[in-house]
Amino acid sequence: MPKDTYYLTAHCPGSLGTVDVVTRYLREQGCYVVEMQTFDDVLSRHFFIRAEFRPPAEQPFDEAAFRQGFAPRADGFAMDWQLTASHYRPNVVIMVSRLDHCLNDLLYRYRTGQLAVEIPAIISNHPDLQRLADWHHIPYYHLPVDDNNRAEQEAQVLGIIQECEADLVVLARYMQVLSPELCARLNGRAINIHHSLLPGFRGAKPYHQAYDKGVKLVGATAHYINNDLDEGPIITQGVEVVDHSHYPEQLIAKGKDIECITLARAVQYHIEQRVFLHNGKTVVFTS
Amino acid sequence: MPKDTYYLTAHCPGSLGTVDVVTRYLREQGCYVVEMQTFDDVLSRHFFIRAEFRPPAEQPFDEAAFRQGFAPRADGFAMDWQLTASHYRPNVVIMVSRLDHCLNDLLYRYRTGQLAVEIPAIISNHPDLQRLADWHHIPYYHLPVDDNNRAEQEAQVLGIIQECEADLVVLARYMQVLSPELCARLNGRAINIHHSLLPGFRGAKPYHQAYDKGVKLVGATAHYINNDLDEGPIITQGVEVVDHSHYPEQLIAKGKDIECITLARAVQYHIEQRVFLHNGKTVVFTS
Amino acid sequence: MPKDTYYLTAHCPGSLGTVDVVTRYLREQGCYVVEMQTFDDVLSRHFFIRAEFRPPAEQPFDEAAFRQGFAPRADGFAMDWQLTASHYRPNVVIMVSRLDHCLNDLLYRYRTGQLAVEIPAIISNHPDLQRLADWHHIPYYHLPVDDNNRAEQEAQVLGIIQECEADLVVLARYMQVLSPELCARLNGRAINIHHSLLPGFRGAKPYHQAYDKGVKLVGATAHYINNDLDEGPIITQGVEVVDHSHYPEQLIAKGKDIECITLARAVQYHIEQRVFLHNGKTVVFTS
Amino acid sequence: MPKDTYYLTAHCPGSLGTVDVVTRYLREQGCYVVEMQTFDDVLSRHFFIRAEFRPPAEQPFDEAAFRQGFAPRADGFAMDWQLTASHYRPNVVIMVSRLDHCLNDLLYRYRTGQLAVEIPAIISNHPDLQRLADWHHIPYYHLPVDDNNRAEQEAQVLGIIQECEADLVVLARYMQVLSPELCARLNGRAINIHHSLLPGFRGAKPYHQAYDKGVKLVGATAHYINNDLDEGPIITQGVEVVDHSHYPEQLIAKGKDIECITLARAVQYHIEQRVFLHNGKTVVFTS
Repeated sequence: MPKDTYYLTAHCPGSLGTVDVVTRYLREQGCYVVEMQTFDDVLSRHFFIRAEFRPPAEQPFDEAAFRQGFAPRADGFAMDWQLTASHYRPNVVIMVSRLDHCLNDLLYRYRTGQLAVEIPAIISNHPDLQRLADWHHIPYYHLPVDDNNRAEQEAQVLGIIQECEADLVVLARYMQVLSPELCARLNGRAINIHHSLLPGFRGAKPYHQAYDKGVKLVGATAHYINNDLDEGPIITQGVEVVDHSHYPEQLIAKGKDIECITLARAVQYHIEQRVFLHNGKTVVFTS
Repeated sequence: MPKDTYYLTAHCPGSLGTVDVVTRYLREQGCYVVEMQTFDDVLSRHFFIRAEFRPPAEQPFDEAAFRQGFAPRADGFAMDWQLTASHYRPNVVIMVSRLDHCLNDLLYRYRTGQLAVEIPAIISNHPDLQRLADWHHIPYYHLPVDDNNRAEQEAQVLGIIQECEADLVVLARYMQVLSPELCARLNGRAINIHHSLLPGFRGAKPYHQAYDKGVKLVGATAHYINNDLDEGPIITQGVEVVDHSHYPEQLIAKGKDIECITLARAVQYHIEQRVFLHNGKTVVFTS
Repeated sequence: MPKDTYYLTAHCPGSLGTVDVVTRYLREQGCYVVEMQTFDDVLSRHFFIRAEFRPPAEQPFDEAAFRQGFAPRADGFAMDWQLTASHYRPNVVIMVSRLDHCLNDLLYRYRTGQLAVEIPAIISNHPDLQRLADWHHIPYYHLPVDDNNRAEQEAQVLGIIQECEADLVVLARYMQVLSPELCARLNGRAINIHHSLLPGFRGAKPYHQAYDKGVKLVGATAHYINNDLDEGPIITQGVEVVDHSHYPEQLIAKGKDIECITLARAVQYHIEQRVFLHNGKTVVFTS
Repeated sequence: MPKDTYYLTAHCPGSLGTVDVVTRYLREQGCYVVEMQTFDDVLSRHFFIRAEFRPPAEQPFDEAAFRQGFAPRADGFAMDWQLTASHYRPNVVIMVSRLDHCLNDLLYRYRTGQLAVEIPAIISNHPDLQRLADWHHIPYYHLPVDDNNRAEQEAQVLGIIQECEADLVVLARYMQVLSPELCARLNGRAINIHHSLLPGFRGAKPYHQAYDKGVKLVGATAHYINNDLDEGPIITQGVEVVDHSHYPEQLIAKGKDIECITLARAVQYHIEQRVFLHNGKTVVFTS
């Protein structure tokens, strides 16, 4: 698949003509639609569209002109829209504590090109994963957190995120709660992995909770963070069958694979502009 | 597979010799072990065993003598044990309201022999499913419930269960809450299907709850009933992937298949003596 | 979800403007797009589109006028296209032999409205399932087949299909091979369920083949029929985990659920106009 | 879970007393059975047993004495048996070509202790993965293979395997065919991952084959190698849903996760002595 394509994504209140305003403009600009999905939410009366297109081959694509031409049309529908080059490699800052399975998995996808991102920084409240970061030539920021320095350290975190011009922050088992202010600032661009099938087993030690309850399935949930702990909009979830012979320790081990895959999938969806955040829920145009 | 076999199941506090007391007795009786599973729960220090065996072919199997011989040995380990012929068809009373997908599924398995049970009664608080019961030649008891007659009708239900000598009661989407007394009487022999991945979305309208939350997986949970609504010991769970385009109506439709399969699997496990109830959880020796 | 909608589906060689010609026409006709998916196959250079839309509410929808207006535009792209009312209930003729699980499942979905079709005829080479058909008030045609009457009986089958104006023929475990001529006549409108993960285990007794091979997964494949036995374009597939303890008999029992679900899903996709047949493969716009 | 346990595994022709001879001996030796599974194959009349037990705590466990005591009893049943300490870390030699996802996954599990093995050598016909091996301090043997040096290089491979006293060889996407002689020597202790759901898509480029066929599920198969290419006894299989939008390149990317997980699971089963090889198939006592 040629990757000289662009994603045009938009959402707005549902009304007659929402699709046409996008497709007609693409046609007028000579853009070839590779794949398109639309969804009009009947209950919330909201419209979502994602188009992947190839600009005309004859000349370089003038993104600015494209934007300028589309803006007034989108305005007519009160569209919130974005144009993204599929070859753009977003800056992803990863935050992690001690457990490294999700980080290791993301780094593997990163270094093999499966995950087409830049990783300008790894932030951790522990020093343990420095060596893994070094091996990938990624700056590692060790910012230990305790009750006295929480605010300062979070300011540091935000500073790094800003300096890196991070498009996305990934909490790859970062075991600290972020302040409401930081959550608000990262709204829609920070993904957390929680090791349970939310809304079941919120909060601490979900595998222990799952063991105590005696469930026969465990899972993982990738979601955007918000102020409510483990309550942000869900992007994707994964699941594994377990049985009575899985003590908490075994649940933890078994859950790792599904956490990695679920988080990686959510990140992939996000950077391919497949995820829309609306009314505390997501619309995800999966492939 | 020859079905002239028996299930010997037992559980007791874990101690040295629990396996041997079972296997040695089977050997002494000339019984051929077809399949055996044991589990010793390290955390609760409790032992579980299930053996399927074939008695000696030379003469009819004397169940009473077998029991009498085993009892004193089992007593030595404080075993709670059961001997069940695999050809025994347990009496299963099904309770249902209006939604018939689980009932229909169980009846199909029943009439084709896949589910080797007798169904002496179907009890419903609605008249709607009479015709389906008739077609299968199963007595249908219509016991409408309202706030004034709850106790009387429940007495009727219990009467039917007793008269049928029901080994198992299956709540196949029976939308009434049973009294604590009835729950207690049916402890360990009444299975409910709840249309969510418990402990998520307890109570009413779980698919609507799931829609509001925006989950990306829905599921079903088969569990023994107890006093706590939707909180009984879980036997098995099933799951389906969904997305934003599934309104509550679509979730309901999509969930039906997984409810049927999950409930049928739980019933099958139960009648094959694969499920042990202990400390509010289950041990299930699946095949 | 309001079901006063229509499906406009089309496919044609990929070229600039394929999306726009559809969306612009819908806009001009005042049609509200509820959901749309397009796919442009880069390798075969072929384009596919499915739009579900709601006509203007003010007046009855004039299908003929819609068609007449769209035809010349579609011709410009050599489009193969269809307009279908979502409330149209297609005529589905079911063919079956002795095993009734798929038939029973389809009939359940039919009688509860989950599967919005008419079933004007059930055809079988065995008399066994007459009673099930009767209970659903569906004409049952018993057409036994042997080596001497194959051609005549197939003519009868074709006659029934034509008389019923069948939109779709479903082979719900019909254990007879159809002639190349009949396959050709039913091209793209006859769905078979094969009880294996094709292309593995083609032909007879796939569960026995699976047992002999010792596979750890079994499955089912719903596909359009063509001349090559079990080689037609695949619509959807389902899978189940198994282990060494599953003899052929157990595989057969375990496979039934997945066969039912896979076949029902394929039929649902087909009648919702989600399936495109192209170059011996399918494009399926799942929801 | 305490890991001062041992695995006693055995298989033999089915006969009366096979279970008892094991359990009675364990009892006599004062061994505490933590978990046991048996299976008596009705069709091939063969018996399999796996017991995990804890020796008496009072004194060090005398393995030699245990073996010596059990041998004559096992001989009476023509048992093929093994005693393995669960804390024993088997030597695993990994063979790989250029694709590193399975290797990377195995090394992650190795370095985090999830996979309790030693990896004394990585063998490759390409130099590419030297750096990855170095980072894990594992010797890397680059043995390029062409049509002229196949026999010599294979002799080198065998030399390394022998020198390492390898208990297991894992072909983690090693794209060279081994000679029948080497296959025979490694019978039952070499696991390959094939990137299809065998027996579908044997041989080269299975994802391309899958694309051409238009399947809706792809998968991976971990199996013991034998002389027949991709035909060895299957240990476990994994599966992923795909659709028309997955070109071969996407299938390859999507398949990587399931290959990793399937291979890791097979290796885990093998080293926990859960897999029995018999008659070209496996019995796997999963937890």
